Amino acid sequence: MENSKKTTISVIGGHDCTAEVESLAHKVGEIIAKMDCILVCGGLSGVMEAACKGAKSAGGWTIGLLPGKSKSDANPYVDIALPTTIGFARNAMVAASADVLIALPGSYGTSCEISYAFVYKRPVIDLGGWNIEGMVKVSGLSELPQAIRQCLSQRDGKE
Amino acid sequence: MENSKKTTISVIGGHDCTAEVESLAHKVGEIIAKMDCILVCGGLSGVMEAACKGAKSAGGWTIGLLPGKSKSDANPYVDIALPTTIGFARNAMVAASADVLIALPGSYGTSCEISYAFVYKRPVIDLGGWNIEGMVKVSGLSELPQAIRQCLSQRDGKE
Amino acid sequence: MENSKKTTISVIGGHDCTAEVESLAHKVGEIIAKMDCILVCGGLSGVMEAACKGAKSAGGWTIGLLPGKSKSDANPYVDIALPTTIGFARNAMVAASADVLIALPGSYGTSCEISYAFVYKRPVIDLGGWNIEGMVKVSGLSELPQAIRQCLSQRDGKE
Amino acid sequence: MENSKKTTISVIGGHDCTAEVESLAHKVGEIIAKMDCILVCGGLSGVMEAACKGAKSAGGWTIGLLPGKSKSDANPYVDIALPTTIGFARNAMVAASADVLIALPGSYGTSCEISYAFVYKRPVIDLGGWNIEGMVKVSGLSELPQAIRQCLSQRDGKE
Repeated sequence: MENSKKTTISVIGGHDCTAEVESLAHKVGEIIAKMDCILVCGGLSGVMEAACKGAKSAGGWTIGLLPGKSKSDANPYVDIALPTTIGFARNAMVAASADVLIALPGSYGTSCEISYAFVYKRPVIDLGGWNIEGMVKVSGLSELPQAIRQCLSQRDGKE
Repeated sequence: MENSKKTTISVIGGHDCTAEVESLAHKVGEIIAKMDCILVCGGLSGVMEAACKGAKSAGGWTIGLLPGKSKSDANPYVDIALPTTIGFARNAMVAASADVLIALPGSYGTSCEISYAFVYKRPVIDLGGWNIEGMVKVSGLSELPQAIRQCLSQRDGKE
Repeated sequence: MENSKKTTISVIGGHDCTAEVESLAHKVGEIIAKMDCILVCGGLSGVMEAACKGAKSAGGWTIGLLPGKSKSDANPYVDIALPTTIGFARNAMVAASADVLIALPGSYGTSCEISYAFVYKRPVIDLGGWNIEGMVKVSGLSELPQAIRQCLSQRDGKE
Repeated sequence: MENSKKTTISVIGGHDCTAEVESLAHKVGEIIAKMDCILVCGGLSGVMEAACKGAKSAGGWTIGLLPGKSKSDANPYVDIALPTTIGFARNAMVAASADVLIALPGSYGTSCEISYAFVYKRPVIDLGGWNIEGMVKVSGLSELPQAIRQCLSQRDGKE
């Protein structure tokens, strides 16, 4: 992997999740890694951990924007643990630090991050049945790489 | 570079600096990269830019924790631009996200980050003539790698 | 007004709003002031300004948690302007700083604050047709004082 | 006390302090209240608590910008407890939310806030023997009211 400004994709979703969602998150992480993008997330458990594990299984890189002040809060598949120290206000960063977000099922933290994505005009792909107006719809994982590419091409020249 | 929890070193210093300090920052960046550590900084100009340039010249990786909301604020040598959106409150993150900090000459932003390093119990190596009690003294660049190693070994098992 | 730990109520809603919503926000501000509570808000225009104006018309006190770094960003009806400097990450504070929140119509910033209210377990009264599960329903303004009192009594001893 | 945009003065200093410093902080709080200014602080113990107690003894109002998420973290003399949720990144707010800061003896948190005062161009009166260039010197408490008035008059029209 050569050095150059990297594309970052944030995966958002619950810190608690079903085995099915975990499997989905793992595949999303793999796709991000295979597209040579950096996976950004909140660094904790559930969707975040499964996505990081998936990205690493495909040779990718993962960043965890942790709410607390200690690197040891990160799940074991985070390569670069960044303790933000600002609690859940770090949700704003998880959104703004992404070129594209992918939303899996989650709770209030995830809906908060979706709101921030709109505030900071980052595209959000809906893989969690959120059905919020303004999100990018995909019918399944097979459409994800194409949806990501389209989001990225629309951002070119904007940022 | 294989994937695994990476050591992060924050370089802090003025966004405006003399050619001499720029040259020092460049060398610090090189040393960080050669030690296979990730360089973290505020992502802007001056010391931050020179250190990133140095790290990249030695094949390293650089992260910019930007105060604003746009990746385009990052200097050209930042690989992973993370817009924190929280202004200079991000100084807390620059400190807490480091296993070790290296302080070059700077102004109020830098002294703020040194204070946060103490608050979050991160070691700070003094390459800026700060002479603040509690900082790690080195007589010059030649002592830097050894000082970094010592700081890291003292952190082992603490975090 | 004697000094003692004050009850704080955050009013959240769009910085842009219709005349009808403005009138609603004004009345909400009056009610808060008459109940001897402190009105907290984001300090800007629209719902925030109308609510502050209403509170002041009834002799109340208003606090503006501004996203920027200057007091002059506050609307003219903010008594105590607090520049948070952290941008829209301050939405977390608008939620956590309230004993009760009242949500009027708004956009992504408002939905973000509703999410934070759930994250920080603050009750949110729905005056904006949000219809989100977990919010406190009221059929109209006449029910607002009673709903506020109920929310406050349920919080007693919890914080 | 009528409603109108209020002048805010932040008192900064250690959460742990000697009886002598506590007594000084109490007097500073009284002076702030007698000048009809709002006392802002970090809301915790030590200098913050003593200053709040002093302000309340003189009929003033006090605001606590708490690092955590719970109002119950505030000292008993805080009237308006605002849980910022962002940890010590809230030091940026303590500085930016003040028209003038008064620095008593303290540790890294206090030096951090002094740095932020310079970053956000707020005047800081030195009552803690800090001797940092750029701070406003006073020889003792008797000079404090005049120093505050002078700082405020120099800010007029700037914000």
